[in-house]
Amino acid sequence: MIKYKLILLVLGALLLVESVFMAISTIVSYFYGEDDFIPLLISCGILLGSGSLLVLLFRKTDKKIEKREAYLIVSLVWIVLSFFGSLPFYISGYIPEYTDAFFETISGFTTTGASILNNIEELPHGLLLWRSTTQWLGGMGIIVLSMALIPFIKIGGLQLFSAESPGISTDKLHPRIKQTALRLYLLYIGFTLTQAILLSVFGMSVFDAINHALTTMATGGYSTKQASIAAWDSPAIHYIIIVFMIFAGTNFSLSYFTITGQFKKVFKNSEIKFYLILIFVATAIIGSGLWYFMDLPVEKAFRDSLFQTVSIITTTGYGTSDFLSWTPTGLWVIIVLLMFLGGSSGSTGGGIKMVRIHILIRNSYMEFKRLVNPHAVLPVRYNGKAISQQVINNVLAFVILYILIIAFGTLIMSFSGLSFDTAFGAVATSIGNIGPGIGDVGPASNFANISIFGKWFLGFLMLIGRLELFTVLIIFTRAFWNK
Amino acid sequence: MIKYKLILLVLGALLLVESVFMAISTIVSYFYGEDDFIPLLISCGILLGSGSLLVLLFRKTDKKIEKREAYLIVSLVWIVLSFFGSLPFYISGYIPEYTDAFFETISGFTTTGASILNNIEELPHGLLLWRSTTQWLGGMGIIVLSMALIPFIKIGGLQLFSAESPGISTDKLHPRIKQTALRLYLLYIGFTLTQAILLSVFGMSVFDAINHALTTMATGGYSTKQASIAAWDSPAIHYIIIVFMIFAGTNFSLSYFTITGQFKKVFKNSEIKFYLILIFVATAIIGSGLWYFMDLPVEKAFRDSLFQTVSIITTTGYGTSDFLSWTPTGLWVIIVLLMFLGGSSGSTGGGIKMVRIHILIRNSYMEFKRLVNPHAVLPVRYNGKAISQQVINNVLAFVILYILIIAFGTLIMSFSGLSFDTAFGAVATSIGNIGPGIGDVGPASNFANISIFGKWFLGFLMLIGRLELFTVLIIFTRAFWNK
Repeated sequence: MIKYKLILLVLGALLLVESVFMAISTIVSYFYGEDDFIPLLISCGILLGSGSLLVLLFRKTDKKIEKREAYLIVSLVWIVLSFFGSLPFYISGYIPEYTDAFFETISGFTTTGASILNNIEELPHGLLLWRSTTQWLGGMGIIVLSMALIPFIKIGGLQLFSAESPGISTDKLHPRIKQTALRLYLLYIGFTLTQAILLSVFGMSVFDAINHALTTMATGGYSTKQASIAAWDSPAIHYIIIVFMIFAGTNFSLSYFTITGQFKKVFKNSEIKFYLILIFVATAIIGSGLWYFMDLPVEKAFRDSLFQTVSIITTTGYGTSDFLSWTPTGLWVIIVLLMFLGGSSGSTGGGIKMVRIHILIRNSYMEFKRLVNPHAVLPVRYNGKAISQQVINNVLAFVILYILIIAFGTLIMSFSGLSFDTAFGAVATSIGNIGPGIGDVGPASNFANISIFGKWFLGFLMLIGRLELFTVLIIFTRAFWNK
Repeated sequence: MIKYKLILLVLGALLLVESVFMAISTIVSYFYGEDDFIPLLISCGILLGSGSLLVLLFRKTDKKIEKREAYLIVSLVWIVLSFFGSLPFYISGYIPEYTDAFFETISGFTTTGASILNNIEELPHGLLLWRSTTQWLGGMGIIVLSMALIPFIKIGGLQLFSAESPGISTDKLHPRIKQTALRLYLLYIGFTLTQAILLSVFGMSVFDAINHALTTMATGGYSTKQASIAAWDSPAIHYIIIVFMIFAGTNFSLSYFTITGQFKKVFKNSEIKFYLILIFVATAIIGSGLWYFMDLPVEKAFRDSLFQTVSIITTTGYGTSDFLSWTPTGLWVIIVLLMFLGGSSGSTGGGIKMVRIHILIRNSYMEFKRLVNPHAVLPVRYNGKAISQQVINNVLAFVILYILIIAFGTLIMSFSGLSFDTAFGAVATSIGNIGPGIGDVGPASNFANISIFGKWFLGFLMLIGRLELFTVLIIFTRAFWNK
C-alpha cells in the first residue's frame, strides 16, 4: 500500500518552505511599491494555508518513506510547487494565460529557463525576484533543501535522496545525509552570495546581481533583461558569470573538497577532467571559427565562444550572442551537440550528464578492443576503478531512452505546426533543462508562440529531464503499481 | 603478420566477378548501339586485366584467412570495386567529375541509392543497367556471391561471412556455408526474376522492369527515371514493388523457410513480427494523416503512405511522393524516424536493423522493471530465448556509436555550407544506406550540389553503414594493428 497521507504531509511541508521564499519576494515587492504586491500576498496566503492544512491533517501519519512513496513525492513536488508558484504571475495578470504562467514556473523550478515572456523588463521587481527564486529553489533540489531545513518531518532522507540524486555519485561527501545536505546548502548559498557581490561590484545593480546569482547557481538562466546577459556590455560581468556557471555545473562535492583543500580527491576524479577538457575543446573550435569566419576580434571571439559553450554545456542557457546567427552553420551545430551533454553529476546542471557521456565513450572504445581480443577482460574504468556491467547497461539504457524521447518528442511537437528544427530544438532544450533551442525558439526568440498543448508537453519533458527520466517514467509502468 | 598477398588475391578474384557482370552491361550496350559501348568495353578490359594479374601473381599464397585479413578484405572490396565500377561513368563522360562518378558507384555498391545525376534519363541503357547492377551485386554481398561462384579460391568462407554478416543471425540456415550461400543466392535470383516478370506484365518495359527488380531486391533504390517510381502512375506497379521491398527487407532465411513450408521457424521469430507491426503502425498513422490533412483519396493515401514507409524502413529509397511536401511536418518526421530503423538482420537492408531496435526497446522496458524490483533476474528475451548481457551491451554500443557518428557527421557536413537539416538528412540517409534525405537532399532533389569533400565523406559513411560500423572502424584502431 502506498502511503498517500505521508505523501500529502511531505508536500504540505514543502509548500510551507515555498511560502517562506515567496514571502521574501512579497516583502521586496512591498518596498518597491509596485502592483504585484497584493497578488504575491494572496498567493503567499494560499500557500501558507494549503501547506498548514496538509501538515496539520496528516502530521500523525506513519513517517517511514519507502521507494514508491519517494518516487511519487519527487515527481509530485515539482508539479505541485509549480502550480502554487505560478499563482502570482496569473493573479497579477502579468501572464494572462494560465498555461503560460505554469510553463514559466515549471521552466523555473526545473531550472530550464525557457520563457514565454515577450518583454521580461515590464515585470515588477517582486515577480522578477520570484521568477529567479523558483530556479534557485529548483536548482539545489527542493528535497535536499527541505531535508536540511525542516528536520521535524523526520523523513528518512536517504531514500528520497537516492531517488532524486543527480546522476551517479560514487563519492559520498559525508556518511550522514542531513549534514551532507546542510554542507552543500551552505556552499550553494556561499557561491550565490559571492557571485552577487562580485556582479554588483563590477557594475550590475544590486537587484540584477542577486537575480543573476540566483539563476546562475541553479544553471537556470532566467535573466531580468530581454537581451539576457548581452544587456551588459562588460567583459568583467561576462567572465564572472562564466566562472560561476562552471562551478554550478561541477559536482558540488568536488567544490567542497577544493575549498577544504582535499585536492587529491579532485585530481583523481575522471568527470571534472572530462568536463573541463570538453569546455576547452569546444571553446577553441568555436572561438577560432568566430575569429576566422566572422571576423570578430580575438578576445571577443574567445569570450563569446566560451560564454555560449559554458552556458549550454552547464544547461544554464544565458546568452551574450545569438548563436543561430553564426556562419558557417557548423559553428552552432557544435552548440546543438553540447545540448545533449549537460553538467556533472551532483551539480545543478541537467542533460545526459558528463559522467554518462564519459562512460559511453569509453565503453564504445572498449567494444572495439573486445572485437579484436574477444577473450580479454576489458572493463571500463572510472575514477580509477572498474565499473560493473550493470552500471554500464544502466548508463546505455538511460542515453538510449533520452534519445528516444527526443525523437518521439520532436515527432509530437512537429504535429503542432512547428518546423522540424524548431520542434527538435524545443524538445532537446526542454528535456536538457537548458533554455534556448534552435529554429523559432532560438536564443533571440522565446516559447510564446508554441501551442497550448505544446507548452504542457514541453513542461512534462522538463520535469522528466530534471528528474533523470526513470524517476518520473517509472510511475507510468504497471510494475510500479502492481508490486 | 597480415597476409597482404592473400588480400590482393581475393580482391583480384572479385574483380573478375565484377568484370563478368560489367560484360553483361557491355553486351546490352552493344545491342542498343549507344555511345557507352566503348567506355564499357575499355572498363571491362581494365577489370579483367587487373583481376587476372592479381590472381596470377598471388595464386600460390597461403589461403587461410584469419580475422584481420577478413576485416581488411571486406572493407577494401567495397572501395576497390567502386573504384573500378566508376570507370564506365567517368570514361564515357556521362559523369564528368571523378568524385561524382565514384560517389554514384559507391552509393550503388553500398545499396544506398543517393545520386548526383540531374537527369538520369539521358544515360544510355548500358550505363543504366550497370548502375542498377552495382546495387544488385552490393545487395547480397559480393562476398557471399563470390563464395558461391568461385570456389576455386578455397577461402574459408566462414570467417569472411562472420565479418560481413548483416546483423545478428541466431538461426543458421544450413551448417555448410557454401550451400547456404548458394541457396540464398538462388533465392535472390528467384525473387529478382519473379519481380521483373511481374513488373513487365503490369506495364513496365522489360528494360525498366529488370533494372527495378535489380535495385529492389538490393534495397538499393536506383531508378531509371528521374521521378523514381512516381513515373509510373499505376497502383499495380506500386504494390508489386511494395511487396518485393518487404521481402528484400526480410531475413532471407525466413523467406527460404516460408517457401519450403517451415512456417514454425517463421512464427517463432521475433524480428519479422516486429518488422511487420512497425510497417503497419507507421502506414496507418501516415495514411490517416494524408487522408485527413492532405485530402487524398483513401486508396491513394494508403498506397503513398505504405510505399514511402516500406521504402524508407527497408532502406530502399524509391519514391512515389515527395514526403517533404506533406503537412503537418509531423507526417514526414515519422519518415525521418524510420530512417534510423533499417531492414531485418540477414536482409539486404541497411540502417540500425530491426533486431537491434527490438532488443533496445525491450531492454529499456526491462530497465524500468529492474528499478522496481532490483533483485529480480529479468533477462531480455528474443525468439523465446534469454539474450546474454554481452549481446545487449554490443547492441547498445552499436546504436550509441551509430548516433554519435550521425551527430559528428552532421557537424562536419554543416561546416561545408549546408543547412542543419540538409546536413543531418544527408548523413542519416548515407549511413543508413537509404537514398533520399531531408532539406536540400530530399526525395525531389539529389546530391549534385554537395561539396567535393562532402561527397567523399558521405561515401565513407555509406561504407561504414553498409558494413555495420565496427567492421570498418576497427581498422582505424591501434589494437587492430598491434595484435
